[in-house]
Amino acid sequence: MGKIPVGILGATGMVGQQYIALLENHPWFEVRYVAASPRSAGKAYREAVAGRWHPVKTCSGAVGDLIVEDANEVSRTAAAGKRGDCAFVFSALEMGKDEIRSLEAAYAAAGIPVISNASAHRWTEDVPMLIAEINPHHADIIPLQRAKRGWDRGFIVVKPNCSIQSYMTPLYALIKAGYGVGRLLVTTLQAVSGAGYPGVPSLDMIDNVIPYIGGEEEKSEEEPLKILGTLTERGIEKAATPRISAHCNRVPVSDGHTACVSLEFAGPKPSIGEIKEILASFTSLPQELDLPMAPKRPIILREELDRPQPRTDRDADKAMAVTVGRIRPCNLFDLRFTGLSHNTVRGAAGGGILNAELLKTKGYFS
Amino acid sequence: MGKIPVGILGATGMVGQQYIALLENHPWFEVRYVAASPRSAGKAYREAVAGRWHPVKTCSGAVGDLIVEDANEVSRTAAAGKRGDCAFVFSALEMGKDEIRSLEAAYAAAGIPVISNASAHRWTEDVPMLIAEINPHHADIIPLQRAKRGWDRGFIVVKPNCSIQSYMTPLYALIKAGYGVGRLLVTTLQAVSGAGYPGVPSLDMIDNVIPYIGGEEEKSEEEPLKILGTLTERGIEKAATPRISAHCNRVPVSDGHTACVSLEFAGPKPSIGEIKEILASFTSLPQELDLPMAPKRPIILREELDRPQPRTDRDADKAMAVTVGRIRPCNLFDLRFTGLSHNTVRGAAGGGILNAELLKTKGYFS
Amino acid sequence: MGKIPVGILGATGMVGQQYIALLENHPWFEVRYVAASPRSAGKAYREAVAGRWHPVKTCSGAVGDLIVEDANEVSRTAAAGKRGDCAFVFSALEMGKDEIRSLEAAYAAAGIPVISNASAHRWTEDVPMLIAEINPHHADIIPLQRAKRGWDRGFIVVKPNCSIQSYMTPLYALIKAGYGVGRLLVTTLQAVSGAGYPGVPSLDMIDNVIPYIGGEEEKSEEEPLKILGTLTERGIEKAATPRISAHCNRVPVSDGHTACVSLEFAGPKPSIGEIKEILASFTSLPQELDLPMAPKRPIILREELDRPQPRTDRDADKAMAVTVGRIRPCNLFDLRFTGLSHNTVRGAAGGGILNAELLKTKGYFS
Amino acid sequence: MGKIPVGILGATGMVGQQYIALLENHPWFEVRYVAASPRSAGKAYREAVAGRWHPVKTCSGAVGDLIVEDANEVSRTAAAGKRGDCAFVFSALEMGKDEIRSLEAAYAAAGIPVISNASAHRWTEDVPMLIAEINPHHADIIPLQRAKRGWDRGFIVVKPNCSIQSYMTPLYALIKAGYGVGRLLVTTLQAVSGAGYPGVPSLDMIDNVIPYIGGEEEKSEEEPLKILGTLTERGIEKAATPRISAHCNRVPVSDGHTACVSLEFAGPKPSIGEIKEILASFTSLPQELDLPMAPKRPIILREELDRPQPRTDRDADKAMAVTVGRIRPCNLFDLRFTGLSHNTVRGAAGGGILNAELLKTKGYFS
Repeated sequence: MGKIPVGILGATGMVGQQYIALLENHPWFEVRYVAASPRSAGKAYREAVAGRWHPVKTCSGAVGDLIVEDANEVSRTAAAGKRGDCAFVFSALEMGKDEIRSLEAAYAAAGIPVISNASAHRWTEDVPMLIAEINPHHADIIPLQRAKRGWDRGFIVVKPNCSIQSYMTPLYALIKAGYGVGRLLVTTLQAVSGAGYPGVPSLDMIDNVIPYIGGEEEKSEEEPLKILGTLTERGIEKAATPRISAHCNRVPVSDGHTACVSLEFAGPKPSIGEIKEILASFTSLPQELDLPMAPKRPIILREELDRPQPRTDRDADKAMAVTVGRIRPCNLFDLRFTGLSHNTVRGAAGGGILNAELLKTKGYFS
Repeated sequence: MGKIPVGILGATGMVGQQYIALLENHPWFEVRYVAASPRSAGKAYREAVAGRWHPVKTCSGAVGDLIVEDANEVSRTAAAGKRGDCAFVFSALEMGKDEIRSLEAAYAAAGIPVISNASAHRWTEDVPMLIAEINPHHADIIPLQRAKRGWDRGFIVVKPNCSIQSYMTPLYALIKAGYGVGRLLVTTLQAVSGAGYPGVPSLDMIDNVIPYIGGEEEKSEEEPLKILGTLTERGIEKAATPRISAHCNRVPVSDGHTACVSLEFAGPKPSIGEIKEILASFTSLPQELDLPMAPKRPIILREELDRPQPRTDRDADKAMAVTVGRIRPCNLFDLRFTGLSHNTVRGAAGGGILNAELLKTKGYFS
Repeated sequence: MGKIPVGILGATGMVGQQYIALLENHPWFEVRYVAASPRSAGKAYREAVAGRWHPVKTCSGAVGDLIVEDANEVSRTAAAGKRGDCAFVFSALEMGKDEIRSLEAAYAAAGIPVISNASAHRWTEDVPMLIAEINPHHADIIPLQRAKRGWDRGFIVVKPNCSIQSYMTPLYALIKAGYGVGRLLVTTLQAVSGAGYPGVPSLDMIDNVIPYIGGEEEKSEEEPLKILGTLTERGIEKAATPRISAHCNRVPVSDGHTACVSLEFAGPKPSIGEIKEILASFTSLPQELDLPMAPKRPIILREELDRPQPRTDRDADKAMAVTVGRIRPCNLFDLRFTGLSHNTVRGAAGGGILNAELLKTKGYFS
Repeated sequence: MGKIPVGILGATGMVGQQYIALLENHPWFEVRYVAASPRSAGKAYREAVAGRWHPVKTCSGAVGDLIVEDANEVSRTAAAGKRGDCAFVFSALEMGKDEIRSLEAAYAAAGIPVISNASAHRWTEDVPMLIAEINPHHADIIPLQRAKRGWDRGFIVVKPNCSIQSYMTPLYALIKAGYGVGRLLVTTLQAVSGAGYPGVPSLDMIDNVIPYIGGEEEKSEEEPLKILGTLTERGIEKAATPRISAHCNRVPVSDGHTACVSLEFAGPKPSIGEIKEILASFTSLPQELDLPMAPKRPIILREELDRPQPRTDRDADKAMAVTVGRIRPCNLFDLRFTGLSHNTVRGAAGGGILNAELLKTKGYFS
């Protein structure tokens, strides 16, 4: 049957497991190759994750029987590619940044496209950082990337940090509607699953808030600018606006990042009514293409005063929708709202799968 | 033995209990009178709070034996005042705002000063809203208040909402040092005890954030302006700045409100080093007078990246200090920081007691 | 189309909402009638639950448009029954026990069968307390019940308390396999949703355990005996064994009751291997009949040392399976295990729906 | 001044820190020596724990300036002993069991008494496992221990696991009053701090219960028998009763282990009234000697239906008292109750300090 065979790098980690769980029964893709650290290599996948499998869905069926490969042995993946077991890989590698950067490049060089969840290549100039609803056209840099590096079939595409997903789509919807944003101040209340596993000790999280997450404020401030950037001959050029300032906090929530946003328009200012209309009606290419992982509405607008909430809204539309509420004016800027998205689905594996679906329809895996 | 006899209105509620617990062994004040709703009236206090006593400290000793009075019967309190059992009352009444407003006035008219935790009189023009370290001179409006209303011994003094305490003292310390603040954006992560008891259902709070608390954003934006206001012949005139915009959230924390603040100076801008110096060295009248409830340092500055946290910092210096950390520049304004204070001590009963200590040294209870 | 029209009494409460959510798209039943307290009567259902809708699934579609009736007006339901809008009702009434007892009887007398979640009639001799996999034959008392009371179409059937569901099915599976149980000691760790809404204050639950739940220990000890009882001409006669002793605790978990069980067999003692085999292979009438709400396996056996857990196991098989793990000998009795079930689905609305499905196949609604 | 200089092995770990915090201002002991892994060795203590200091009390004063030694270099401690800086050590070592066993023995051999929190020597025949209120006479085996091993000044004393502390003292109080206990079934709900730091990932603990803690059930069943054992010429001989069966669970609580106990008396059975009297009036040697760390009452009896609770009772009397409530008959055995104690104070560092105080009064440090 014609499913595209895919591989998972870092398959035993938390995001890797999330990929496995979300790809079970995927209409287009089928996991046929799993790779992880040498420690897991050689074991059946089921055995390699025994006692540390996180998704609620049981690890069942064929994937459990796959033998875990050593992620460092790129040639084996290339061979799997040649025998038709791995058309591309999702990278959920958990190593040092430099190691990931060169390992992902080695995969691409070996002819294996890499759809990465890691931050290693986010600032590589010719690597697109995709949110499928926002900058699908950035994928068009792939030919340039291949040309510059002498790669034929392989390429690298990344997705941004989970912390920005709760405000990035609403921000873009406004920009797309003609309302440029000059400044944005965001305070995030982030779930513990964002720290991976074992992640945050429960002794630090019971009855507590941690007002700091290493590196998250910088990512939250900078990554939106690349996503909103322009394609040039050299790569992707960062947008100049909005200027962003972030306060990132860890809170005792399992899944679902909440973002409290105040923003200032750069030019014309829509009314609150218009803003609601823009957000609620926003759709984009993944919706037009009816991609399997795409939410029907990328943004769900809630009118209740006390929504969105992680417990009630994180799983909206396959956990792929961003829920927005509390739309109201800001005393200092123009607009305040609260956004929420599922950090390990929309913000990690689900977002990666949606990117792969987009790239498939664009023909990049053939 | 010369302790001043005090009464507690709303003594069986959560804040009322906190007053009882904090006043046990107070060097100046002694609880000799407790009043609550008719439902509790006539019972021994110990019995009235049985099964709903919240402070960790046991309700022990003489207070437990006091017979609860009906808070609506002002004349009984006046009589207690006359027989020397109640020099003033702390009001922790939980009723409708209008009822509290007139009941507190009735107490004052009957010659009983009222130190109130309720919001009813916060915007009454001639009622000072005190934070002892910030606007102790606002107490000087008491003679005017008495004169306007024809009260002899009685008066009303209130304290502000708990949500502002985590940023109000740092804000004032900067202003006092000559660095006026024009704009302030704050996102609060507030503890459930701020909602009283029973308050927030646990079903709404486990693994969750609630991005809305009725009335808190307005209080967080407006009350600082009265506290920073000027005494005039008519009452207290609101300050014009800073303009404040607030996002108030409820988080699964028992005690301790966290505030993520970005602010912009109106005039000269201190360096980060100067700011730290100003905050760490700030003291005020309660410290000079060495009031029993006053923290040694109203602001505790932490240099660790991940502080303040509710669990580790809320109890600092009798739970009366505000802990400030993460002092850093803001990409949009001038300064970002995180502040934390104990909402039911510094932000409620403890703050009320400190106000009473201040008023005593100023001679208002004689 | 031929769906059976059903009504929900107490439709706006937490269990009532759970019924609405679970019955959306049910293949046999369709909610066409909702009743609640006079306070909600006359409003559209959607409006009546606005701001207090708990299930994650949105309250959508036709049910939201139904006008809420006053649950006390039995005649209106009877009329709805006559016009074909209400073949029977699920009762999730939240009132005093005596009121519920007579109100449910009034419905039955008016010709409306009542499938109740309330405890009011659990000890009424001729009312069966059903767990569909355990005592489906107790439904056969309905003709006797009708005869004694002069009811023609109506009857009352109840389900037991949520706290017993995590050990009752494993207990029965062992008994059915020929291994009678003489004594059973159980300690429960119960979720807050079991207390309804608003239920347990979060101030009591954050970083805490409450070692008492009013009435739960008695129910946990007594109700199993009726379920295991014998049909006689007078009603259901309690079984004599097992003797049960329960410790019931509330823990900071949203959904999912955990039960730590030690039990002693009365006669022959199976080996640990046999016990696992018995539990894992247990099925009963609902599985044979392939009822829509029935789990494929009523008991899911887990071999991992640290399972079952509420987060990972409560939703197993539509949240209708009981997950059992940690099967091991007991130093005092014969067997120790941990059981877990979803208290508001298996233990409340889901169990009620399964009972209704059973009664439908037995022909009691015609 | 005459304080006894003490050392802490494993001083940077969680229990080590707890020792430092509890010994600040201790009237008899003064921490003058700290040792940890080679990784920390050479740093100032304050620096070695920066960013991972857990007690609420700040690490202040002289201890912060101490240079951390390598715990493996026993000779340095011996030298410290000789120059009067270390009369004995508290061991909070976190290493492999075998390593700890030989390292603690090496310290003792070098003339340094070891008061250990580790489990390594708990089953060494001539090493007493002390709970100061229960088996202080077991310390009398120290001369035998020294003689067997040829140690002059050194010796090893251990304390039992934290999980047993919530039921061990009540159990002993009953036995001491003449009511022997034959069987005891206990289900524990244990706090995360019992797992050390980082310990339990918050992703496993939010909205969850883990029904398994490696090794805890065995310790909970076996250690009481040594504590209740008899001194013989060869060492301590285990008591034969009570037979104990334990279910150990991890719950989302920071500090404070709850134990639900059912027990059966072996001989005469006291009434519920007598049991309450026995528990409430129980005192022992530490109380007679008025040791600084001893609680006034080792057992605090609560009559409220819903007590003890971790939040309200764990800190009772310097967190050294065991709080007992819900005294009631058991349907299967004779008595049910719930016990609670602070696992890192009473159950770890505080218990160790109390043991050291006892040994000091017995003259073992001279």
